[in-house]
Amino acid sequence: MSKHIRIVDTTLRDGMHAVSHRFTPDDMAEIAAGLDAAGIDTIEIGHGDGLAGSSFQYGFAAATDEDYLKAVSGVLKNAKLDVLLLPGIGTMEELELAAKYNAKVARVATHVTEADIGEQHLKLAKELGMEAVGFLMMSHMVGVDKVVEQAKLFESYGADKIYVTDSAGAMTPKDVTARIKAVKEAVSVPIGHHAHNNLSLAVANTLAAVEAGADMVDGTCKGLGAGAGNTQTEVLVAVLDKLGYDTGIDLYKIMDVADDIVVPKMKRAQVIDKNSLSIGYAGVYGSFLLHSLRAAEKFQVDARDILVELGKRKTVGGQEDMIVDVAYELSQKQAAN
Amino acid sequence: MSKHIRIVDTTLRDGMHAVSHRFTPDDMAEIAAGLDAAGIDTIEIGHGDGLAGSSFQYGFAAATDEDYLKAVSGVLKNAKLDVLLLPGIGTMEELELAAKYNAKVARVATHVTEADIGEQHLKLAKELGMEAVGFLMMSHMVGVDKVVEQAKLFESYGADKIYVTDSAGAMTPKDVTARIKAVKEAVSVPIGHHAHNNLSLAVANTLAAVEAGADMVDGTCKGLGAGAGNTQTEVLVAVLDKLGYDTGIDLYKIMDVADDIVVPKMKRAQVIDKNSLSIGYAGVYGSFLLHSLRAAEKFQVDARDILVELGKRKTVGGQEDMIVDVAYELSQKQAAN
Repeated sequence: MSKHIRIVDTTLRDGMHAVSHRFTPDDMAEIAAGLDAAGIDTIEIGHGDGLAGSSFQYGFAAATDEDYLKAVSGVLKNAKLDVLLLPGIGTMEELELAAKYNAKVARVATHVTEADIGEQHLKLAKELGMEAVGFLMMSHMVGVDKVVEQAKLFESYGADKIYVTDSAGAMTPKDVTARIKAVKEAVSVPIGHHAHNNLSLAVANTLAAVEAGADMVDGTCKGLGAGAGNTQTEVLVAVLDKLGYDTGIDLYKIMDVADDIVVPKMKRAQVIDKNSLSIGYAGVYGSFLLHSLRAAEKFQVDARDILVELGKRKTVGGQEDMIVDVAYELSQKQAAN
Repeated sequence: MSKHIRIVDTTLRDGMHAVSHRFTPDDMAEIAAGLDAAGIDTIEIGHGDGLAGSSFQYGFAAATDEDYLKAVSGVLKNAKLDVLLLPGIGTMEELELAAKYNAKVARVATHVTEADIGEQHLKLAKELGMEAVGFLMMSHMVGVDKVVEQAKLFESYGADKIYVTDSAGAMTPKDVTARIKAVKEAVSVPIGHHAHNNLSLAVANTLAAVEAGADMVDGTCKGLGAGAGNTQTEVLVAVLDKLGYDTGIDLYKIMDVADDIVVPKMKRAQVIDKNSLSIGYAGVYGSFLLHSLRAAEKFQVDARDILVELGKRKTVGGQEDMIVDVAYELSQKQAAN
């Protein structure tokens, strides 16, 4: 009896970052139909930053949340439709819209220390009849105990599933194992893991999560995603299949979706370059990159040094003003040497 | 006290597969100078299939072994120059040529069950004053005991170092750990690992090797290599650095070599597609791919089914005639259904 692992494909949400959120509703419908036919359990869609992410600040998507929901909900036969909501970006209103279009899963994503801001959204998702998933981002930034504490908070709000997420792609397999094991022991709901590939460890980390007891894991076709991208779904399916896990996915079909449907819609190959590698190495938000590159140019320092220093200071999203301070300090130190 | 890990960069040998062996001597000299300045310990160069690999059968390189040796040996300041020799392709004569151009390391590569065909080449390498490395290819195909037996054979021939090589990119971290640990216990010389990325596990496997006791590991800039490519050197350096290992390599410099010197010379981004993934999934030689695609077309079957069946039968290089047999059998089965 092989363990069933539920795979959530987020090509059409996290993968949107890699195409500047420009997949059209038709693109999404075509890819989603392929994923559905390949046996993918859950398909997440929308702007890269979730519901209502389309904005001046996060980049405009090619269409509205409603257009995407309509297009994809119309083609799914078996897969569950899933949306991501970052409290502060998305609101209760968008969650109601998603439910109207038959979204069955709502993932409420907060920084790993801020599960409490997800309470009302998780509760609304449940009221709307959706599976409510608490999603702890940047969970490499804190120790195991803190992750467990925040996971328990999510559970207390009624979350049906809890995710440990490595948003910066900064974890090693041991980091993942420690967190998944601890959370699995501490809560009674199923556990998930979402990896990024900045250190080229996304598939290995996802495998480590499964071996440590995770019940569901994320991937994207071709590893599409911000920066270095995500766990490559079709590779993950091959690895799990080889090791005897049951994913319910047809390996050849998911390979074909990736290479024959997704690739022609990609703008560039998903690779690890010095920028995305530096994000994983420093363990900071991907969104710090552009600001750091600009500050580096202005102050004539190496952007990588800025990122590493931001990582040491455990800088989080919202503290972007620190970037210029750090760049200035580094330039002063450089001048003094 | 952090453990020193010796990194062998093989961008200019295994990476040659990804550019159809078309790096010029000037390309090699430029990249090698960058690798040397970044602190890479050992730089392997030559045709993708090693000394004398340039041929009708394996593809013609842009220049001769002698041209490459001359160009690179002229620019190295600290790094050791390294060549690979597959007995049956390269001969004693090429080894002498390499020594003449100051190559300090000779890696003698054999199938994992055929260490004995490397005896005379290892002995000659030592006579020529080179470090003699025994390199066991396709070591996923046999059990741990067989790998140990063959490693001991290499040691008995005087090999200074022994490599456990995952030529098909078919291993998981556990497979690597088991083999490295066992070989490390069985022989008294340092141990190395060479990974491929077909299952997106190259960096993780290399890390597992280091954690299991490997003293030296291979990589290529941007992961350049046949099929899915190799362990991405600059990513590996970042991961080892993050975990406190000492590689002696300047992380920013090696990132810059990869992105600023190697990338402009690449023909295509190094990614995992359904062909290279199928090689890792089936655990067969990369060179079976083209033959299988041709046979698949002729017999109207799926090439992936051919590869998987070849893997089950533990087909090895030299048995390419089996490919048509398998394709024919599959087509008969298909017709019967």
